[in-house]
Amino acid sequence: MDNFSFYNPTQIEFGAGKEQGIGQILAHHGIKKVLLTYGSERIKRDGLFATVSNSLQQQGIAFVECGGIVSNPVLSKVREGIALAREHQVEAVLSVGGGSVLDSSKAIAAGTPYAGDVWDLFIGTGQIEAALPIFAILTLAATGSEMNNGAVVTNEETQQKFAINSVHTFPKVSIVNPALMQTVSRDYLVYSAADIIAHSIEGYFTASVQPKIQSRLVESVISTVIETTEALLADPTNYAARAEFAWASTLALNGITYAGTSGFSYPNHMIEHSLSALFNVPHGAGLSVVMPAWMKWYCARNPAQFERFAQQVFGLKTAEEGIAALERWFDKIGTPTRLSQLGITEAQLPNTIENVLSHAHWFGLAELYTRDAVTRILRKAL
Amino acid sequence: MDNFSFYNPTQIEFGAGKEQGIGQILAHHGIKKVLLTYGSERIKRDGLFATVSNSLQQQGIAFVECGGIVSNPVLSKVREGIALAREHQVEAVLSVGGGSVLDSSKAIAAGTPYAGDVWDLFIGTGQIEAALPIFAILTLAATGSEMNNGAVVTNEETQQKFAINSVHTFPKVSIVNPALMQTVSRDYLVYSAADIIAHSIEGYFTASVQPKIQSRLVESVISTVIETTEALLADPTNYAARAEFAWASTLALNGITYAGTSGFSYPNHMIEHSLSALFNVPHGAGLSVVMPAWMKWYCARNPAQFERFAQQVFGLKTAEEGIAALERWFDKIGTPTRLSQLGITEAQLPNTIENVLSHAHWFGLAELYTRDAVTRILRKAL
Repeated sequence: MDNFSFYNPTQIEFGAGKEQGIGQILAHHGIKKVLLTYGSERIKRDGLFATVSNSLQQQGIAFVECGGIVSNPVLSKVREGIALAREHQVEAVLSVGGGSVLDSSKAIAAGTPYAGDVWDLFIGTGQIEAALPIFAILTLAATGSEMNNGAVVTNEETQQKFAINSVHTFPKVSIVNPALMQTVSRDYLVYSAADIIAHSIEGYFTASVQPKIQSRLVESVISTVIETTEALLADPTNYAARAEFAWASTLALNGITYAGTSGFSYPNHMIEHSLSALFNVPHGAGLSVVMPAWMKWYCARNPAQFERFAQQVFGLKTAEEGIAALERWFDKIGTPTRLSQLGITEAQLPNTIENVLSHAHWFGLAELYTRDAVTRILRKAL
Repeated sequence: MDNFSFYNPTQIEFGAGKEQGIGQILAHHGIKKVLLTYGSERIKRDGLFATVSNSLQQQGIAFVECGGIVSNPVLSKVREGIALAREHQVEAVLSVGGGSVLDSSKAIAAGTPYAGDVWDLFIGTGQIEAALPIFAILTLAATGSEMNNGAVVTNEETQQKFAINSVHTFPKVSIVNPALMQTVSRDYLVYSAADIIAHSIEGYFTASVQPKIQSRLVESVISTVIETTEALLADPTNYAARAEFAWASTLALNGITYAGTSGFSYPNHMIEHSLSALFNVPHGAGLSVVMPAWMKWYCARNPAQFERFAQQVFGLKTAEEGIAALERWFDKIGTPTRLSQLGITEAQLPNTIENVLSHAHWFGLAELYTRDAVTRILRKAL
């Protein structure tokens, strides 16, 4: 077990109806005016917006709307949110949506008090020294953003999908009500499952130090995702399954399963970020394509852990059987496993490879992920 | 999964040498004078006291010593610490020791700003509305106190072993260096193993709502404790095993494995607290006696979960086989499984039963744990 620091001060308010208390939570934190960020206008049709705005009004909390945040959230929208936050002098950001809305909200919260352009914070030419307090009501369980300090945003001009994280960008409070997730489409449910599994396996397979207790925790998360995804495909109103799926999603990336591991990297995310940036594919759909291909390419580097995965997650014996089982499971639940299913053709590979290579040094992966390596991985996904 | 709130702001600094940074950590929090609490004078012989005091001096932090805290920590010592803290107007408490020192430190931290007597806070006639900031250097992994807000103290006059917890009694920072635990005696290692398993199974078996993902996390903790205890008995200098043991101990009671569970209780702790209070047996030794007896008595109330335990932890089939395997394992590692091994005779049962019954309503267990039930459980442990 490697030395580590663990600190995660986010308060999770989990369960049915919790969003009704958002006004009181903000009031408790002394907030009188928020930027209310969201995605589509769906929250206005399904009643969530009304619940939230009523709760705010009851506590005398003013809000400024910043809607229209898209998945694979973009920098231009973050800049728009920062301008709004400054103009109206809001005291906090309240994110109502999934990981894209929350990531954008974190970027807005960090960018508002920063004197320069917010993209500086992503490329390291500026430091996050403060942020507006962040509050969240989660409507999709996938990214884990509700209980960590990371945010990923795409710069449309440079086609870069980059991340920030800082001690200032943990949400103060995240409300996770599984009942709000019942209306998530079948597609986004299975993409989310792929996303959670990706968060789980990146460290699990790539860490040079991977304590067994942490492997056990990761396997607990993956087994839960597999089981509850199947339950939810059979019955989207299964609250117990929806709740365990959501908690698995939070645990996958709140730092608990990564404590004491080291030397790990995010190659699947690196490659997928190029697919998202170039072809605007859903993040989880990109990941379910990349993962089996990457696993086939990588598994000889850590055979014992791939065997462990096969045994503990699927009750199988060999590394190859485990990888095949995961790929079959992705096929079964209906998340893509081939680039062609994303509409990406062989002719588009060179451009994709260039984009991955241009990101590789940001992920600390330029050495292992050469042109040859990335080509081999992507060709396995054709 | 039941509704829950999760909030745990304790920063964990885990790993070799981390205690050398204690002065900087306190300085970062603006602390200039601390009450330094500890147990025996061993820390002065083994160099830890010198490391800590040097680090404090380098940062110009003054300290007042409060040593001599014993296991099953007592109220009189807590009152002594509060008097010292007030007299010297310390700004924080720095606990250097195991769970008993840390629990005493939490009680001192809460009692110092409280106008009345600190025992009020344990029996509910007073509320914890503030506490001195708490910092810890852990020398024994067992209680999980390093990453939660609970503290258990025995009132010697009333023979009551009661608990406090409050949002104010989370340690700000806990340093967990597994290397400092290498000198823990063989006895205390196995008692600690029993303690961690007890923290894990109380909720696991008694909860009326026990999500499967949480059962998986608990089983990950227990499997790790079993594996690493055996490794440490074979080689006490095995750092990797010591580290996983310590992290398992933290995870068992930091709230993660209890999130979303409900309707659970602490019957093994309730019964053991009477053994500690009356006969001053080590907490873990008392627990390894109580647990198998309690499990045999309780298992018909939750047969599926006991079967799951047998299967997932020991690879066995029936509830009875699982309980027998745990009892055998306690025997194998050398922690007691019989009251007689604690020097408690049949003649002392009536007095013990009275003590348990007198505590039962504090644990919310007066209804199920009648005189007859407690008698049956304790007789199984004779």
